[in-house]
Amino acid sequence: MRDFSTDHRWLSINTATVRKSRGQDLPLPQILDACAARGIRAISPWRDQVAAAGLAAVSKQVKALGLELSGYCRGGMFPATDAAGLQAAHDDNRRAVDEARELGAACLVLVVGGLPGALAGRAAHKDLALARSQVRDGIGALLDYARSAGMPLAIEPLHPMYAGDRACINTMEQALDVCDELDPSRSGALGVAVDVYHVWWDPKLEAQIRRAGRRRLLAFHVCDWLTPTRDLLNDRGMMGDGVIDIPLIRSWVEAQGFAGYSEVEIFSTLDWWQRDASEVLNTCIARHRGAV
Amino acid sequence: MRDFSTDHRWLSINTATVRKSRGQDLPLPQILDACAARGIRAISPWRDQVAAAGLAAVSKQVKALGLELSGYCRGGMFPATDAAGLQAAHDDNRRAVDEARELGAACLVLVVGGLPGALAGRAAHKDLALARSQVRDGIGALLDYARSAGMPLAIEPLHPMYAGDRACINTMEQALDVCDELDPSRSGALGVAVDVYHVWWDPKLEAQIRRAGRRRLLAFHVCDWLTPTRDLLNDRGMMGDGVIDIPLIRSWVEAQGFAGYSEVEIFSTLDWWQRDASEVLNTCIARHRGAV
Repeated sequence: MRDFSTDHRWLSINTATVRKSRGQDLPLPQILDACAARGIRAISPWRDQVAAAGLAAVSKQVKALGLELSGYCRGGMFPATDAAGLQAAHDDNRRAVDEARELGAACLVLVVGGLPGALAGRAAHKDLALARSQVRDGIGALLDYARSAGMPLAIEPLHPMYAGDRACINTMEQALDVCDELDPSRSGALGVAVDVYHVWWDPKLEAQIRRAGRRRLLAFHVCDWLTPTRDLLNDRGMMGDGVIDIPLIRSWVEAQGFAGYSEVEIFSTLDWWQRDASEVLNTCIARHRGAV
Repeated sequence: MRDFSTDHRWLSINTATVRKSRGQDLPLPQILDACAARGIRAISPWRDQVAAAGLAAVSKQVKALGLELSGYCRGGMFPATDAAGLQAAHDDNRRAVDEARELGAACLVLVVGGLPGALAGRAAHKDLALARSQVRDGIGALLDYARSAGMPLAIEPLHPMYAGDRACINTMEQALDVCDELDPSRSGALGVAVDVYHVWWDPKLEAQIRRAGRRRLLAFHVCDWLTPTRDLLNDRGMMGDGVIDIPLIRSWVEAQGFAGYSEVEIFSTLDWWQRDASEVLNTCIARHRGAV
């Protein structure tokens, strides 16, 4: 396993981690500058942040600062109640692929979606199997386009507590079943994003990481699980503050040959988003060295 | 599948559902009377409620009212940091078996525990594999005693969001692996409690219910998953108010020959515990007929 203790060359910052500073929105250009100023070599930005700053301007800034993108957040949200909805999702995902390519991202992360309408509190139905089938078909349709664009798709299995409203792919095993079905040759065009927050609890995690192998391991995300967790979405912990044995999971991923960035992705309304972004980034660097 | 629409003879009330009425603690004897007065034939009480009312008095009341116990909540919490802690858990679980037997419960439900100390916010370590090993050993040791007492043990896989602090058995597959290891003959002494709230998201649920079969399906619990869910523990929904396809899961369980009670277990600080218990029980009856 790589030694992270002496530098932070393999640290990436998912820009959601500092999307707010002292509770106020922090524009993406400032986030990029703050990362570069600290010798952080990679980021993973969100589409809404990029759109607000302008794709061309972000692309130019990324290149000027010499930043890499460990991923681009995010495509997905495939399920819909009718053909028009499915098509709209497909079209939007193609745009996400284009943006990821323009920014030079290592992969497009897919948060696949749950029951249509559930995120707004009004699920159109309860047929999880249908949603899962639409996800598989949606990824399959997008894969051809992504392949032609040279943009790998990384399915991110989300924690089962998001099965209804955010993502109905909830385990590594399930994600890899989709990968095996749609990309049996393990071409590198389709794989998974392993976020310890979503998968740390899984008794089959080590075996499934082994199953994934280097070709399917496209991204590695870290934060921590707090006890208690006060909010299902926005109470993620800084690495070292929770109960996840992050180095153990990293050792499993690296045993397969993964040698990419360790991307910090923390949503924290109550804590880290209330602090100054400089403090958050400095803490990410310190914890990357000591707790990842 | 049984038709629940015309009566509620297969409804059981987990007494946590009405442990508070209008925000105030409701003593177990009043809960039992309120159930019996509505023709509810079964309950599943919690140990703390029984202790507060006195085991002998509760046992007497249960018999006088002709109530059955679809289960007894709960044993478990096996992991500990030292031998004394493991022994204390073992001793307490033997007492839980004794109480369940005294009350004539159909099974003792096991919430197996997570990382020692995590429930109090101070996890002693992050070794989930160790906790799981202690759980397996703890169930194994308890099984001999439970078998001699004629009290089936029902492992309840808890939702993965409780893996750290409440239960490190988080899927049906994992629970059944433990059952197969400790009771390969499928004697009936060890099985699972299927709570739709904990397992509804699992893409392998139907297959694992089939694997369990009638001998391992010891209890069936219902409530609903709300979107959004505002609290990890105490924001469970009334059947029909959320996104779980409860009749579908019941059809899977009954296809294996399960013919026991459908037990309503709702923790709801923000909603149902604020209402009058009579309204909650009447709603349980109506939803049992229409949404289960």
